Amino acid sequence: MNPEPRSIRRIAINTGGGDAPGLNAVIRAATLGAYECGWEVLGIRRGYMGLLEAEVDGEPGICPLTPHSVRGITHLGGTILGTTTRGNPFGMEVRRPDGSWGTADLSDTIIERFRRLEVDALVAIGGDGSLNIAHSLHQKGLPVIGVPKTIDNDLQATDVTFGFQTAVEVATDALGRLHSTAEAHQRVMVVQVMGRHTGWIAVASGLAGGADVILIPEIPFQIDRIIDKVRERDATGRRFSIIVVAEGARPADGAPSYADETGRYGGIAERLAEDIETATGKEARTLVLGHIQRGGSPIAYDRNLALRFGAAAIRCIHDGNLGTMVALQGQSIVAVPLGEAIAALKTVNLANDTIQTVRQLGISLGD
Amino acid sequence: MNPEPRSIRRIAINTGGGDAPGLNAVIRAATLGAYECGWEVLGIRRGYMGLLEAEVDGEPGICPLTPHSVRGITHLGGTILGTTTRGNPFGMEVRRPDGSWGTADLSDTIIERFRRLEVDALVAIGGDGSLNIAHSLHQKGLPVIGVPKTIDNDLQATDVTFGFQTAVEVATDALGRLHSTAEAHQRVMVVQVMGRHTGWIAVASGLAGGADVILIPEIPFQIDRIIDKVRERDATGRRFSIIVVAEGARPADGAPSYADETGRYGGIAERLAEDIETATGKEARTLVLGHIQRGGSPIAYDRNLALRFGAAAIRCIHDGNLGTMVALQGQSIVAVPLGEAIAALKTVNLANDTIQTVRQLGISLGD
Amino acid sequence: MNPEPRSIRRIAINTGGGDAPGLNAVIRAATLGAYECGWEVLGIRRGYMGLLEAEVDGEPGICPLTPHSVRGITHLGGTILGTTTRGNPFGMEVRRPDGSWGTADLSDTIIERFRRLEVDALVAIGGDGSLNIAHSLHQKGLPVIGVPKTIDNDLQATDVTFGFQTAVEVATDALGRLHSTAEAHQRVMVVQVMGRHTGWIAVASGLAGGADVILIPEIPFQIDRIIDKVRERDATGRRFSIIVVAEGARPADGAPSYADETGRYGGIAERLAEDIETATGKEARTLVLGHIQRGGSPIAYDRNLALRFGAAAIRCIHDGNLGTMVALQGQSIVAVPLGEAIAALKTVNLANDTIQTVRQLGISLGD
Amino acid sequence: MNPEPRSIRRIAINTGGGDAPGLNAVIRAATLGAYECGWEVLGIRRGYMGLLEAEVDGEPGICPLTPHSVRGITHLGGTILGTTTRGNPFGMEVRRPDGSWGTADLSDTIIERFRRLEVDALVAIGGDGSLNIAHSLHQKGLPVIGVPKTIDNDLQATDVTFGFQTAVEVATDALGRLHSTAEAHQRVMVVQVMGRHTGWIAVASGLAGGADVILIPEIPFQIDRIIDKVRERDATGRRFSIIVVAEGARPADGAPSYADETGRYGGIAERLAEDIETATGKEARTLVLGHIQRGGSPIAYDRNLALRFGAAAIRCIHDGNLGTMVALQGQSIVAVPLGEAIAALKTVNLANDTIQTVRQLGISLGD
Repeated sequence: MNPEPRSIRRIAINTGGGDAPGLNAVIRAATLGAYECGWEVLGIRRGYMGLLEAEVDGEPGICPLTPHSVRGITHLGGTILGTTTRGNPFGMEVRRPDGSWGTADLSDTIIERFRRLEVDALVAIGGDGSLNIAHSLHQKGLPVIGVPKTIDNDLQATDVTFGFQTAVEVATDALGRLHSTAEAHQRVMVVQVMGRHTGWIAVASGLAGGADVILIPEIPFQIDRIIDKVRERDATGRRFSIIVVAEGARPADGAPSYADETGRYGGIAERLAEDIETATGKEARTLVLGHIQRGGSPIAYDRNLALRFGAAAIRCIHDGNLGTMVALQGQSIVAVPLGEAIAALKTVNLANDTIQTVRQLGISLGD
Repeated sequence: MNPEPRSIRRIAINTGGGDAPGLNAVIRAATLGAYECGWEVLGIRRGYMGLLEAEVDGEPGICPLTPHSVRGITHLGGTILGTTTRGNPFGMEVRRPDGSWGTADLSDTIIERFRRLEVDALVAIGGDGSLNIAHSLHQKGLPVIGVPKTIDNDLQATDVTFGFQTAVEVATDALGRLHSTAEAHQRVMVVQVMGRHTGWIAVASGLAGGADVILIPEIPFQIDRIIDKVRERDATGRRFSIIVVAEGARPADGAPSYADETGRYGGIAERLAEDIETATGKEARTLVLGHIQRGGSPIAYDRNLALRFGAAAIRCIHDGNLGTMVALQGQSIVAVPLGEAIAALKTVNLANDTIQTVRQLGISLGD
Repeated sequence: MNPEPRSIRRIAINTGGGDAPGLNAVIRAATLGAYECGWEVLGIRRGYMGLLEAEVDGEPGICPLTPHSVRGITHLGGTILGTTTRGNPFGMEVRRPDGSWGTADLSDTIIERFRRLEVDALVAIGGDGSLNIAHSLHQKGLPVIGVPKTIDNDLQATDVTFGFQTAVEVATDALGRLHSTAEAHQRVMVVQVMGRHTGWIAVASGLAGGADVILIPEIPFQIDRIIDKVRERDATGRRFSIIVVAEGARPADGAPSYADETGRYGGIAERLAEDIETATGKEARTLVLGHIQRGGSPIAYDRNLALRFGAAAIRCIHDGNLGTMVALQGQSIVAVPLGEAIAALKTVNLANDTIQTVRQLGISLGD
Repeated sequence: MNPEPRSIRRIAINTGGGDAPGLNAVIRAATLGAYECGWEVLGIRRGYMGLLEAEVDGEPGICPLTPHSVRGITHLGGTILGTTTRGNPFGMEVRRPDGSWGTADLSDTIIERFRRLEVDALVAIGGDGSLNIAHSLHQKGLPVIGVPKTIDNDLQATDVTFGFQTAVEVATDALGRLHSTAEAHQRVMVVQVMGRHTGWIAVASGLAGGADVILIPEIPFQIDRIIDKVRERDATGRRFSIIVVAEGARPADGAPSYADETGRYGGIAERLAEDIETATGKEARTLVLGHIQRGGSPIAYDRNLALRFGAAAIRCIHDGNLGTMVALQGQSIVAVPLGEAIAALKTVNLANDTIQTVRQLGISLGD
């Protein structure tokens, strides 16, 4: 199924799922790398939707990507191709003849469109959902190379994902700003950061930002341990506390789930603040960092990782190494089979020295 | 009542109310300026509480401020003296003999403590509440010079207050980050910024940060105008919108008050998002910026304004110009009588060219 | 000569001279403001060169500016129209028939081109050189409105110019970074900032960044006073010193001019460092900040000032208030006659409280 | 020679060589980690000098480090202990009886002082010079654990060193600012970054910052290749170029060494700019980033790496794993024998995918 290296003439690039700082750097590196091989590049807008909609808002669904069109985009947030969290070719929302909405498998249509466009390979940049789709398309005959994208850094196959360090930097900066006001006012600040399934951002920003408590999904917390920490600090004259909580953190077994009760994003920070206020009598305020963690210009670390991913994807296509995903392992970019890559969630390794460091610094993990 | 300039030997400095970026710069400039005059300086911790509590958490309530102790603090957020929103000498929380809590007028005690410490003048840095207290203490015989502090920039007597531009910068940076993710996902983002009574931060950050709608307390909004704007943008292919709302913004007469309904900080953004989602069917997300606007390092503009305020306070004391507050008017620092200074709220001037600019740029003000 | 307000149908915008953070914000506000009036807008590339060169590098010399083309540019450094420090219509470099180069007055040609393009008014954004040209073109019959641009902040007619506060922020940030390394190594750091004729950037960044010595063109310095300051600090245990020097600073009368001797940009910092090393035996290092002060994204303050300038220019055209320059005076944007506006250099007011503050803080001005 | 884990009662910490962002984070983590073990901690000021000088500038040469004294220092640049590039115990500058200066081996004195202070182990944070000294002291009987410090990232034993990513971020930010002004003025900018022996900072910042040419010590450059690149860009309408040059870059064999000719720091950028101006007729300007790369607050990445190093050093002492240096290898902190650790310089791996990426992006490496 893999094309002969020399037979490549045209590739396509798309971005899917939530955005992450570094997407444009991947697009740039893949485009320039392809041109250096003498290939043409097509950008597909809004995931796979650009193949189905000839034009939206005056913009064609497909655009040529050239050295000119990817100039000066390395540092830009978002994605010049647009993205969508809808638009799965295997379950596309469609309107039925009777006017009602349903889903349909349009994967054959998608693959046919790629064929008519004479696309020899697709660089699919996306999270686990998008990579699953990419894998299925590859299995149906469309040569695909995957580029992982998750600011949560929770993909087993790669040591780090781009966008993650930028999110950590943004969260750390916010913690720094909160410190001075929390100290001046002797308050408890509860800061909710991203991480539905894993605590990578919470641990890294909490450590760098001087948190007193870090709560992550990997370690169900006991509210009493948190309150103990706030009181202990008070008793020794540090009358403020900073608590960083991943959005997916949850109380230890037996306790009611905060998330279930509140049933909405942002709930855990509010609930923690209430419990702490009630127990300690101290003012507790919340900050839900939300989308500023995933928007905006990537830091240099993420730009470089993203550029390396994009360039590596082109080398994979050139070498006929398709059906794979590029990944960072140690100091090098490697290609791992897509099927394996998307299988496993990478949770925070509780035995790693980072967690030891957290404990040695006297930071409570709520356990 | 004002002391003879030559008779000054010792002054005191305190900070009251919420913190603002630049407080430490005022403290530094006032301390260095006083030393240059040959005076001693005492810092009073936690507003006036440091005069009443001999020691808290191992720290004395009063500390000498020297050139050494104010080194390297210009760029630090918070206040090295601590602050409190409680601790009004004229209505101090005290425990009665029967064990219950009440308030008592301890202003005579406070003034007596200043006398025993041989303090010849007090530099009181604070918001309207703190400046009111300072004014009353001055009237009771304690020579006072006020330094205005409000990141909301809502004090009539001064063109600008320190901390305001830093808050605007933080909010603008957040808006920039949200832009790329809002555009990538075609979402509506509602960002709540500080401003209970005035829209200065909302206007300045909304303008600089490219908001599509700016809602301020000075202009009660009509939800239909906001929805129109979102729809108009959608219809012309800009499928995302950024709405900046001051926490004190409210709907036009006749409509129910959002604040009353939700009864809590953060309510207005959530409510707007719900209304917009319902009306337009678009995803709407909120970000309540909260305390990161007031914490952290001041930008150069605020450092300089704060340093100038602190130095001017010393010149006022030197010149016997007491019972006044320092203020920026045009390019110069002036001294205005405290009694006048604290009287008037400065709302956004709707006739000023800034609001004209907002309208010329096609930004909706919800009216 | 001024057009009837209602007769305006098309305006042009150009940018001239060195770039400054905020140029794109002016272009955006002027374009959107014009569209709101129902006018068309033409952008002239590379100063006036775009009128003479039909196409350069595949880009036409003139481009329509539309709401679409000015989207998302408020925060971008540089200018989307390009700029040039050559290209004076009254003395344009031209190749003579014999092949040699000379200058020619092409102002009539320029005006004729504007007429053929049916341009009713020109928004000329530039420094004193560009505004002088704009004034002359206005006098020859082309209706012009000027927008001042100088990051040096040295124009008498306006309280502040856009780009200045960004330059101050960049320089202050650099000073902050140097502080920790200077202190750790007990070094003298000499930092050269922009300011050929005036010390605005040096004073504002030196004050905010904690300089120990600030040298500006307005106050010729005595090298002995600088060395005294370094020694005095050493003697009291502060074994490092930070010296900020405007590129145009010079020694007091009698001493040889550093600039003459070295004859190049960057010379003054090097020479000061050598003199201080020789006199004190301490290591002295230099940093010439150079172009990073004028490139990059404008801070919110400058974005807003630039947007206000651009919007005000459109109001001036609308009101027939031509041959003027927009300017900030106090809290408002005003229009001043171009002829007056470009006449006077605004030097640092040595009687203003800012300079008093510098002295009260114990910072040496080298005098 | 290694102490029994349980026998540890007191450790010391010092910092040597040039400063790097993250030093204070190491100090904090080591101090808190030690307290958690029940140990006391002494800070030695200015490398080993604090052991020899009872007091300098009113500060004792040795200070207790406590949880209180290391509060809020994670984000601070520099080192709270001070540092020095002089002060080698094996070759200390001393004044001879005849008044002249010479060097003396004071290592026995140093070790004796540590013994009298009952220091059971030393955490020595420093570059290759300082680690060599630490190794020799260890061999003479002082139990030592080394923590590597080089912002150049050029130590073979560890994948990354703290401070490096901060330097890259600062240089990348500067490149971003230069881009807009270089483009507006169609100039060549030559930016000199740190890296005497290796090109790590140049490659990482050049890649992230969009450089057109990156020159590193590992690849001797040919000036003609650089000029070709500038001309090639000009010919395709990109009339500006950004060149990043490591301070230790040098021309290929046969060409005269720039460094030898100019004989000073900063020389290479100036010389390159002159050569490019001469050859292309384009304006070329230089920026020597210098010390702002090593001062100031570390980014989150470096804070976390430094905290992990400091905590790991304590675990090494606890486990009796002395005479080693902590290092990052893959995702984990390991301990490597000091003797091996300091032996080898880590140059940029020219076979690594990062260099491949540079070439795929069309960036010239001057070869």
